[in-house]
Amino acid sequence: MPIFATATVAADPTGVLIAVLLSLMVIYLASRLGGEICARFDLPPVLGELLAGALIGISVLHLLAFPEHGLTAQDSLLMRGVQSFLHLTPEVQEATFVAQGEVINLLSELGVIILLFEIGLESNLQELLRVGIQATLVAVVGVTVPFVAGTVGLITLFHVPTIPAIFAGAALTATSIGITAKVLAELQQLSSPEGQVILGAAVLDDVLGIIILAVVASLAKNGEVEIGRVVYLIVGAAVFLVGSVLIGRWLSPAFIGLVNNMKTRGSLLIMSLILMAVLAVIGAAIQLEAILGSFTAGLILSETERQQEIEERVLPLADFFVPIFFVCVGARTDFSVFNPAIPANREGLVLAAFLVVVAIVGKVTSGIGAGWGETKLNRLAVGVGMIPRGEVGLVFAAAGSSSGVLSDALDAGIVVMVILTTFLAPPLLRLVFPNQPATPVPTPEPHV
Amino acid sequence: MPIFATATVAADPTGVLIAVLLSLMVIYLASRLGGEICARFDLPPVLGELLAGALIGISVLHLLAFPEHGLTAQDSLLMRGVQSFLHLTPEVQEATFVAQGEVINLLSELGVIILLFEIGLESNLQELLRVGIQATLVAVVGVTVPFVAGTVGLITLFHVPTIPAIFAGAALTATSIGITAKVLAELQQLSSPEGQVILGAAVLDDVLGIIILAVVASLAKNGEVEIGRVVYLIVGAAVFLVGSVLIGRWLSPAFIGLVNNMKTRGSLLIMSLILMAVLAVIGAAIQLEAILGSFTAGLILSETERQQEIEERVLPLADFFVPIFFVCVGARTDFSVFNPAIPANREGLVLAAFLVVVAIVGKVTSGIGAGWGETKLNRLAVGVGMIPRGEVGLVFAAAGSSSGVLSDALDAGIVVMVILTTFLAPPLLRLVFPNQPATPVPTPEPHV
Repeated sequence: MPIFATATVAADPTGVLIAVLLSLMVIYLASRLGGEICARFDLPPVLGELLAGALIGISVLHLLAFPEHGLTAQDSLLMRGVQSFLHLTPEVQEATFVAQGEVINLLSELGVIILLFEIGLESNLQELLRVGIQATLVAVVGVTVPFVAGTVGLITLFHVPTIPAIFAGAALTATSIGITAKVLAELQQLSSPEGQVILGAAVLDDVLGIIILAVVASLAKNGEVEIGRVVYLIVGAAVFLVGSVLIGRWLSPAFIGLVNNMKTRGSLLIMSLILMAVLAVIGAAIQLEAILGSFTAGLILSETERQQEIEERVLPLADFFVPIFFVCVGARTDFSVFNPAIPANREGLVLAAFLVVVAIVGKVTSGIGAGWGETKLNRLAVGVGMIPRGEVGLVFAAAGSSSGVLSDALDAGIVVMVILTTFLAPPLLRLVFPNQPATPVPTPEPHV
Repeated sequence: MPIFATATVAADPTGVLIAVLLSLMVIYLASRLGGEICARFDLPPVLGELLAGALIGISVLHLLAFPEHGLTAQDSLLMRGVQSFLHLTPEVQEATFVAQGEVINLLSELGVIILLFEIGLESNLQELLRVGIQATLVAVVGVTVPFVAGTVGLITLFHVPTIPAIFAGAALTATSIGITAKVLAELQQLSSPEGQVILGAAVLDDVLGIIILAVVASLAKNGEVEIGRVVYLIVGAAVFLVGSVLIGRWLSPAFIGLVNNMKTRGSLLIMSLILMAVLAVIGAAIQLEAILGSFTAGLILSETERQQEIEERVLPLADFFVPIFFVCVGARTDFSVFNPAIPANREGLVLAAFLVVVAIVGKVTSGIGAGWGETKLNRLAVGVGMIPRGEVGLVFAAAGSSSGVLSDALDAGIVVMVILTTFLAPPLLRLVFPNQPATPVPTPEPHV
């Protein structure tokens, strides 16, 4: 018997479908417009997708609006479009708005999951293991330097209390693997030694970030660290990453043998996606991240004899889903933190200036970690590759906001730092990498 | 300001993600299992997908359960799995269940939209127009015969009152373009003359079905027909189908020219999907169907010079989305109507026997319409192709249930008729078509 059904008004199915299709149209138009403009100025297209997302999102046009920002159907231009066809009651309209928001959120999450799956497929596990020590050094330096410099600087220079300062320092440690990997792919640098070091370090950074977030969140809540939870996360991450690669390598011949015996259309893609979903679910369920699972699934399949075919079939899926992720990251970003007319923003912008410097210098410094045992590596490129905080930084900012320990000014400062590092990283990466791919990469026929 | 936010508990984002990924895993495993078993018995794989969907759905395993069937999170095995990881409060759990249901519904709708887009792309507009008169005759006969025979038979033989009898007669007129088109594609018969006649007739049937549904719904509500609405639907459908093909043919060179000038990855696919979304939204907004829009978009693009490339990129998308649709159609079907222990079902099964005979004989009869001007056409195959009621029939059944004019027995009888015609049509089609494709079709490399 439906216990809570009385409390909820059902969404209108046609309304949800129209709203989602309209959202996809707007997202795709924005991604092409932004991407094409950036491509013409020799900038990475993903920067254009982020900026176009910002244009259609909560900051400017309100074409894409999300219920979790406290907005209602009235705030969404798209929902008003739906309303002009369907004449829904206000309650149904609101439920429809919430439902389309859930769907777009999920499609966007599938976008980054499939992006990391594709990145894993295009990676080279041998090469990734070969650069493992360098990647680890980069990750550790890239987490330690910004964290210490940020926390100590905020306490000594700006007299910020200890716990908020630790929170802000933690937010400085994040690296957005999605944005970095996408830019590397666009520059055809994913399979270069620099690309593999950045990728490995970004994966480790993601794991370190989750552990740090758990530490500071329990600090902010109880004033002390839950050791058990931290140990659980460290052990869980290690067992998950190492275990799934080992088990995956062991079982993948049987997996490919099974797929080779299947007769129905699309089986290779579907079976690969099942593996991706299994590892993504495990990643999310043990409180790591779904994208770590999908990346690992891609890595496992990258070693199989049918890697090439899987990649060909995943490519159009990535083309479908990935722009939704980047445009939504832009659309969710609230640029009003740059508005100096709001008092908290003025102090926030000063803090932001400091945080941005620490964020960039700290991560560029991490590039020296890549110097271990190899002298020809472009260390600057590695450091710059670690700069974007992206959606991971926004998660830290959101956790900080909701914990209540951050002042409005520090909150705004963190958001500004995340935005600037995210939007600056693609053009900076474009600058530090030479025009041509460093290593010969197989040139596929242009996939436009 | 969020007006209704107080009434709604927000879903847990990680919970929704895990639930959706688990649902996709279950859907894909079911689709492969069912498809592969059917392929081995030389049956159409889509039958296996429908049956496997029924196995995991509301009738048997409850792995996939949908909130709109009055089920709660407790009824869904998957949600219990999510719960074991996340320990959500009952309210959040329920909201998460509803949200994942919205997402799966939407993915399933995207599945049939993309299926019809692919079918349109693989069709031949010239051939479709050439068989236009035959297709129209098939559609008209296939709507008139079952409607008249069903309505009159129920009134005279079973003493059913007039309005419910008209409703049941109307439900007999539907044809599921999705199921028929998928089976034809599997048999490589889409581009045969029979395939094109069936496809054209099924499109017209879909339009006729929408008009009939509007007529009987207003009859059931007010006891009279809203002439204005019927005229609107007829004119709207004609203007939409003819207009979008004409405008599309006129504008498609400019469209392809634009795409040829784009530099970012995935632009051909994305721009094609934008066109698909535009026409699907218009179709849904003028109260026709989104699938008519996506089919038309496919038809328009099928005439362009880049048809082949678009099709290659749409194929993996269809492989991703289409199984979700068929498995969900199976999962939503409530087989408890076959249970004779429920009193209304016993009378319903008697009515169902009558309805099934009318449903099959009426549609097979429509094949004679295909005889016009062409003698070599396999008329039996055309008639059999029109048999499956599928999701369109379920829409009629649902409209009947909610109108309150149907007795429980008649309601159950209609559902049984829809199920049997849907599940019988794929093996019957397999029987009436020869083993080899009738016309030479381009044999693509096996896409497994």
